[in-house]
Amino acid sequence: MDHSVNPAPRARSHKVYSEVEHAGTILRIPARRIELSNGDSLDVYDSSGPGSADRRTGLPALRQPWIERRRPLGQGNVTQMHFARRGIVTEEMAFAAAREGLSAEFVRAEIAAGRAILPANIRHPELEPMLIGRNFLVKINANIGNSSVASSIDEEVEKLSWSTRWGADTVMDLSTGRNIHETREWILRNSAVPIGTVPIYQALEKVGGRPEKLDIEVFLETLIEQAEQGVDYFTIHAGVLLRYVPLTAGRVTGIVSRGGSIMAKWCLAHHRENFLYTEFERICEVLKRYDVSFSLGDGLRPGCIADANDAAQFGELETLGELTEIAWKHDVQVMIEGPGHVPLHKIKENVELQMKLCKEAPFYTLGPLVTDIAPGYDHITSAVGAAMIGWFGTAMLCYVTPKEHLGLPDRDDVKQGVIAYKIAAHAADLAKGHPLAQRRDDALSKARFEFRWEDQFELGLDPETARKYHDATLPQDGAKTAHFCSMCGPHFCSMKITDDVRRIAAENGVGEREIVEQGLREKSAEFVAHGAKLYS
Amino acid sequence: MDHSVNPAPRARSHKVYSEVEHAGTILRIPARRIELSNGDSLDVYDSSGPGSADRRTGLPALRQPWIERRRPLGQGNVTQMHFARRGIVTEEMAFAAAREGLSAEFVRAEIAAGRAILPANIRHPELEPMLIGRNFLVKINANIGNSSVASSIDEEVEKLSWSTRWGADTVMDLSTGRNIHETREWILRNSAVPIGTVPIYQALEKVGGRPEKLDIEVFLETLIEQAEQGVDYFTIHAGVLLRYVPLTAGRVTGIVSRGGSIMAKWCLAHHRENFLYTEFERICEVLKRYDVSFSLGDGLRPGCIADANDAAQFGELETLGELTEIAWKHDVQVMIEGPGHVPLHKIKENVELQMKLCKEAPFYTLGPLVTDIAPGYDHITSAVGAAMIGWFGTAMLCYVTPKEHLGLPDRDDVKQGVIAYKIAAHAADLAKGHPLAQRRDDALSKARFEFRWEDQFELGLDPETARKYHDATLPQDGAKTAHFCSMCGPHFCSMKITDDVRRIAAENGVGEREIVEQGLREKSAEFVAHGAKLYS
Repeated sequence: MDHSVNPAPRARSHKVYSEVEHAGTILRIPARRIELSNGDSLDVYDSSGPGSADRRTGLPALRQPWIERRRPLGQGNVTQMHFARRGIVTEEMAFAAAREGLSAEFVRAEIAAGRAILPANIRHPELEPMLIGRNFLVKINANIGNSSVASSIDEEVEKLSWSTRWGADTVMDLSTGRNIHETREWILRNSAVPIGTVPIYQALEKVGGRPEKLDIEVFLETLIEQAEQGVDYFTIHAGVLLRYVPLTAGRVTGIVSRGGSIMAKWCLAHHRENFLYTEFERICEVLKRYDVSFSLGDGLRPGCIADANDAAQFGELETLGELTEIAWKHDVQVMIEGPGHVPLHKIKENVELQMKLCKEAPFYTLGPLVTDIAPGYDHITSAVGAAMIGWFGTAMLCYVTPKEHLGLPDRDDVKQGVIAYKIAAHAADLAKGHPLAQRRDDALSKARFEFRWEDQFELGLDPETARKYHDATLPQDGAKTAHFCSMCGPHFCSMKITDDVRRIAAENGVGEREIVEQGLREKSAEFVAHGAKLYS
Repeated sequence: MDHSVNPAPRARSHKVYSEVEHAGTILRIPARRIELSNGDSLDVYDSSGPGSADRRTGLPALRQPWIERRRPLGQGNVTQMHFARRGIVTEEMAFAAAREGLSAEFVRAEIAAGRAILPANIRHPELEPMLIGRNFLVKINANIGNSSVASSIDEEVEKLSWSTRWGADTVMDLSTGRNIHETREWILRNSAVPIGTVPIYQALEKVGGRPEKLDIEVFLETLIEQAEQGVDYFTIHAGVLLRYVPLTAGRVTGIVSRGGSIMAKWCLAHHRENFLYTEFERICEVLKRYDVSFSLGDGLRPGCIADANDAAQFGELETLGELTEIAWKHDVQVMIEGPGHVPLHKIKENVELQMKLCKEAPFYTLGPLVTDIAPGYDHITSAVGAAMIGWFGTAMLCYVTPKEHLGLPDRDDVKQGVIAYKIAAHAADLAKGHPLAQRRDDALSKARFEFRWEDQFELGLDPETARKYHDATLPQDGAKTAHFCSMCGPHFCSMKITDDVRRIAAENGVGEREIVEQGLREKSAEFVAHGAKLYS
């Protein structure tokens, strides 16, 4: 096992830090700089962290002094929302704002309003702060975690590094097997991104795997154990109410959320209301002492196209809205989980209803898959839905790998899932007009047009694969600087012909100046005015 | 080289034919029947053709008697549109209608109105008729074709069979290298799907690769040569007008269409209007004698996000609308090609404008890619745009493979591209509510929920890959019937817990009947009315 992780994913890029001063402290803001062959460079958002020489020592505790300095101010509530609402811009807010190219005050206001969260447990000082909210770059989450069937601790930590190398913004540890606590510890100490968990999985282990044995005490004990380790957000299925459960009985695929099905079984077994709902304020009391954010789970999310947007799903969403307000009363940060499987024409309704019912708390969706007919390709079926729901306002997209519904993702599946979701998130950023987004498309397109092949590769999400594909047809080194490509060959190259077009246009005095002065409409009018008709 | 092509892509499916009578003729309508382990079966649309024992003998000439019988009726115009407008339902219309589960009269009316085309050259009798129009299933096109750099005839015919095996509805032969004529002949004689070409490529070969040497005579000669062979639709870049060319000079990526750049260079070199435009009616005269459909090319389509929806693109689209009406005057069938590279928020405008300017002639788009930053993954960046534009009304989606922008697609790239586009097209069909679409999703989801693993694999787009992924984690044969999967293991299986939920719900008298009688709103109201408050 190689313990030195996070090698640079690109041959010609490196980590750079810009310095930002905040209240007397110098913050070092990470980015990845891609050096281009024409002397230009492009800095891109980078979540891969500083890397560590040895996994066993973990990452530096970047935030420790900030947390210490702020301790007297919190009065038992240390959440970013608590500070934001009191008008305080924290180091975390200034740091995350700089990563997005936005002002720290704007970030503070968004967090105070509940429209964004900055998940940052005070026990996770290794974290590089980041934002989840619809007025920021769309983020993506990768799931890792062992199960009783397969996978080891080393594999999981390796998957964490691998996920962030390709661009995951947060990682959820969904372990359900042995060594849950130890696996999580290793993951947290090596993670510069927020780590989320579903604590009910571990709570269930503690009661021998029998849902009906669960109660609020074992659950709170589990929350504290995980909060002490530094988990940044918890998925909690507090919206699975007794009265919603029968609404799923007529579905094609019933309840497909593990957490949701556990709580549904508990409710039915006891014929009582979900204890996560009835004891919700006790949970808030724990979360605010660490600044763990809620990720309110959608335990009744649809598991197929046929079940999308049904009464069970939207009933739970209404309850999540109610719980959001309770959490906010405690200044606990909240995001809301969403589906799942939704056909294209039903996606928008999900976002609109979520924004309304949950008062614009950030939405965090799993895909959604827009069809069920492609097992083995659900990173694609879901990237389609993810791009669209991201454009409509979803703040974070939980990835799906090609193995979804079939097996546990391996290293390559994780990469495929992350890249499909970087595509979806970036497409949404472009459509929303985030100021940082289009620069990269333009730089890559310009490189493509100018036949700067290496620049085109380096500016892409996966330079290695792009280079490999190019080499499959034209392996010669000379082809990397050739002014044509394998698709058309040298005589048919449209880009080469465009160069000629530009030259001839310039020689004939038809240039950019003319284009600016005469728009299309004017030129058409002129054409008609001169009697230049078809078949004259 | 294996000359017996088109092996069944699925272990438990086979080709079936249903018989439909039309005007005294029995039409045998193909479908693929997927047999399920619970005794059910599902018939799905199938474009893979009858297969041939030997590629060198080609497929049977299914349409020959229909064409012969109709010959006296056409009076020099043999297009499906010509017959449709005279109230005649052809065998082709009846055949294609049956494939879609729709009435032949509806199909006739759609073709007569120009809202759909049925591309079917009378010299391509091997064709199984199909429809391209927004009121039918969304279709996908796969591109094949050799270039001067690589690829052989056998490879291209193999790619044809391989494309339709995975679900391509039409195939374009974009060959530009040697043996263009012979390659095309082999492809046509072995194709049950419509074949499209871009004749300007071959015309350019005939004039030594120098665009300025092109003229209408060599172009018409090329059209006749290809029409005689049986090509079903021609991409013709007649909308690249002299006055639009300077509008591209300020673009990030200029002109990226090969045909577009050839015609732009011709216009500038001669400082005259595009001869494809000025001589358009002569082209119509050729096409109507064979029933070759126009695919009016978008020679000025954007080549990157920055250039989307600009004056050059929309100027050309306006001209394509003008040409559509001229073609329709001759009863020649028309579809309109579209972009290319378009960010999510600019996709809808493309469809709306196309429908308006081109009077609802079918739209046929390449992707579009919704971002430029993922070379190596453009089957995904473009499947996102394709799904959306298909939902908005695009009738056919031209696939993009992972090698786009990098190299020539190999066998696996073709498969990856076709599957990504089957996903996009099917997602659009679901969203548009095509009556045939959701049955397959529901059958697969039901199989998934009931742990009928083999049925889940067989109902998917790629059973082999799904099975392989499942086996990677749980290779034992027993796991194929196990009531759990590798993701959660036996104790955490949400689907298993849902079974318990259903059982307990049934025992407690909370069942489906109650669900039907009491909607969510009622139950909420009841809950509140009974004073069951949180934290009571």
